[in-house]
Amino acid sequence: MFPRPSGIVTLCTDFGLDDVYVGVMKGAMWRAWPKAQVIDLTHAVPPQDLAAGSFHLWTAIGRFPSGTVHVGVVDPGVGSARDVLAVFAHGDYWVVPDNGLIGAVVVGDVLAEARRLDLEHLGVRPTSHTFHGRDVLAPAAAMIAAGRYGFRALGPRAEAFCSDDAVFGGGPRILHVDRFGNLVSNVTAAQLGGATAVRVSDRQVPVVRTYSDVASGELLAYVGSFGLLEVAVRGGSAARLTGLGTGAALHVDSA
Amino acid sequence: MFPRPSGIVTLCTDFGLDDVYVGVMKGAMWRAWPKAQVIDLTHAVPPQDLAAGSFHLWTAIGRFPSGTVHVGVVDPGVGSARDVLAVFAHGDYWVVPDNGLIGAVVVGDVLAEARRLDLEHLGVRPTSHTFHGRDVLAPAAAMIAAGRYGFRALGPRAEAFCSDDAVFGGGPRILHVDRFGNLVSNVTAAQLGGATAVRVSDRQVPVVRTYSDVASGELLAYVGSFGLLEVAVRGGSAARLTGLGTGAALHVDSA
Amino acid sequence: MFPRPSGIVTLCTDFGLDDVYVGVMKGAMWRAWPKAQVIDLTHAVPPQDLAAGSFHLWTAIGRFPSGTVHVGVVDPGVGSARDVLAVFAHGDYWVVPDNGLIGAVVVGDVLAEARRLDLEHLGVRPTSHTFHGRDVLAPAAAMIAAGRYGFRALGPRAEAFCSDDAVFGGGPRILHVDRFGNLVSNVTAAQLGGATAVRVSDRQVPVVRTYSDVASGELLAYVGSFGLLEVAVRGGSAARLTGLGTGAALHVDSA
Repeated sequence: MFPRPSGIVTLCTDFGLDDVYVGVMKGAMWRAWPKAQVIDLTHAVPPQDLAAGSFHLWTAIGRFPSGTVHVGVVDPGVGSARDVLAVFAHGDYWVVPDNGLIGAVVVGDVLAEARRLDLEHLGVRPTSHTFHGRDVLAPAAAMIAAGRYGFRALGPRAEAFCSDDAVFGGGPRILHVDRFGNLVSNVTAAQLGGATAVRVSDRQVPVVRTYSDVASGELLAYVGSFGLLEVAVRGGSAARLTGLGTGAALHVDSA
Repeated sequence: MFPRPSGIVTLCTDFGLDDVYVGVMKGAMWRAWPKAQVIDLTHAVPPQDLAAGSFHLWTAIGRFPSGTVHVGVVDPGVGSARDVLAVFAHGDYWVVPDNGLIGAVVVGDVLAEARRLDLEHLGVRPTSHTFHGRDVLAPAAAMIAAGRYGFRALGPRAEAFCSDDAVFGGGPRILHVDRFGNLVSNVTAAQLGGATAVRVSDRQVPVVRTYSDVASGELLAYVGSFGLLEVAVRGGSAARLTGLGTGAALHVDSA
Repeated sequence: MFPRPSGIVTLCTDFGLDDVYVGVMKGAMWRAWPKAQVIDLTHAVPPQDLAAGSFHLWTAIGRFPSGTVHVGVVDPGVGSARDVLAVFAHGDYWVVPDNGLIGAVVVGDVLAEARRLDLEHLGVRPTSHTFHGRDVLAPAAAMIAAGRYGFRALGPRAEAFCSDDAVFGGGPRILHVDRFGNLVSNVTAAQLGGATAVRVSDRQVPVVRTYSDVASGELLAYVGSFGLLEVAVRGGSAARLTGLGTGAALHVDSA
């Protein structure tokens, strides 16, 4: 039922890449299991932004070998009494603070199962009150990736954990603006249906297949690589052209 | 003739590091071959800037174990009919869209050979029209790195592919400004010959060996670590001092 | 006495992540030893800032498996006559230019021992005068990580090397501002003793355990994950609130 860990651990945090925090988390993993194959999903989640963190964590679903361990660290409550969860969902393992960060991941898997990490049982002893990414989540993730503990041995079942879905809940809106100025929405391909146009900021934008389906400089909408509706400008930035950003509403005209 | 793959894959893209795109490409590689040893050359190519991408890709020549696979993704035509190329040049393998990105790499190797990836034969089926870095180039690169296909089995020979050289063509000019404000030109050590000075922005700059050959705060020119002429300021930024940037002309006085 | 190398190499430089320099250093390591497990501690040391580099290098102490090799490259004197050191301290190996970068690391280990790299003996031949990170430190670090040379075979003992401590010397002050706007000081937990408050910028700040011990928006001081006193704002940025940055003084009231 639980797949063999792939040995891969991904990291999704609000730490940025300027500080040593990410490097030091990798050190903590390797101290627990030197063979962990660790990569960065992103560290550019805005500080303490749980909704953005939840979206980015969600993008990892199905994108790595089955049994990969995904670590999410956006943790305003670090050092308080909040638990750390291990979650099994979509064929992968997820290690997160119990603060809703896992919301978008679990909403799509009715079989998702969560455990509260039993730190004493796992032999994990935090040495700080402010960096549990390093002290708790990293070694726990490494031990899961190493297959040292079966999923159900990680701690007691979490019956009621925080799984607020700040990503797909609410109306159609922009979730994320990427480096190219593409506006990534929370509208799925299924929700889009056969719609042939969307409206953003009072502009009608045609739904097409890819950039080259419109002229250079024109707005387009399409189901992007996340499986979500995106609005872009061919050879330009939709964020700059429309002035829209994260949180802005968009409207899908019925087909 | 074709060296055994080193198992290493380098990435050179215009994706930046804030988005999950790079992490997700690594996931796609590991789904194809979990042992790929993947590193980042750079992801800071300005969006859709083929000339800058071509320069950065060129910097990888000879810098990795023989048989390394280099992936370049600057891909304004993604989703259109453009092919993806596998190129063998300088003892390494290169996987790029057929849009000129490989120009600076192949111009220096008269024995370079290119294949158009036969996606059906390779079992590669894109699931998006906008992210072939993930859907096509990543798995193809991983399979090449794994030695799963010989180079000539990757697809039909590309007789006429786009190899415009936007890097070394044209007159002497600044190709790149690095983090230190050093101005990296397209003038090779051989072209520099015995010249003892260069002119940038109406200033005469002495050609020396290294920073400590001039006084603090002074401009200097030297053959830098790329084997190209660079202009720098000891303990400062030549970009700031001269106001010059990418594309600016420079003049080499005859020796 | 000297632990077996862990096979891990960490990098701490002022190269940033936009240029190819870091990727090319990894290539140089893998050309020397393809199995090196290389990670980034940080590359955001401000250009040529030895004190900041020394602090960041110091943060790696004890954070990686014993016998890890740490490479530090902040190297304004590259190409001049300065030596490159291999240092054994705190159970790990360190490879740095002889310019004081190792200061904070060695000040805390009275048994630290340093060698001047004998490049000829190691078969290391720099091909540039401006990028010894790639040409000297990377291959040397890889060979140490591979266990190819015992520590004492790396070169003659460095009796008097530069170990100026620009981190912990001088009075109590801010060493580093992190992404969250937390002000990391050079005051250790031991130095803090039982003090219950510190003063920064004429504000009295209570010493507590973690963020949730104060109200949202309030300043707090605590022993952070580096084992050093930090000043933060719960749910905000102490750098923004106080206007303080690196170098600013702080005062510890006696307990």
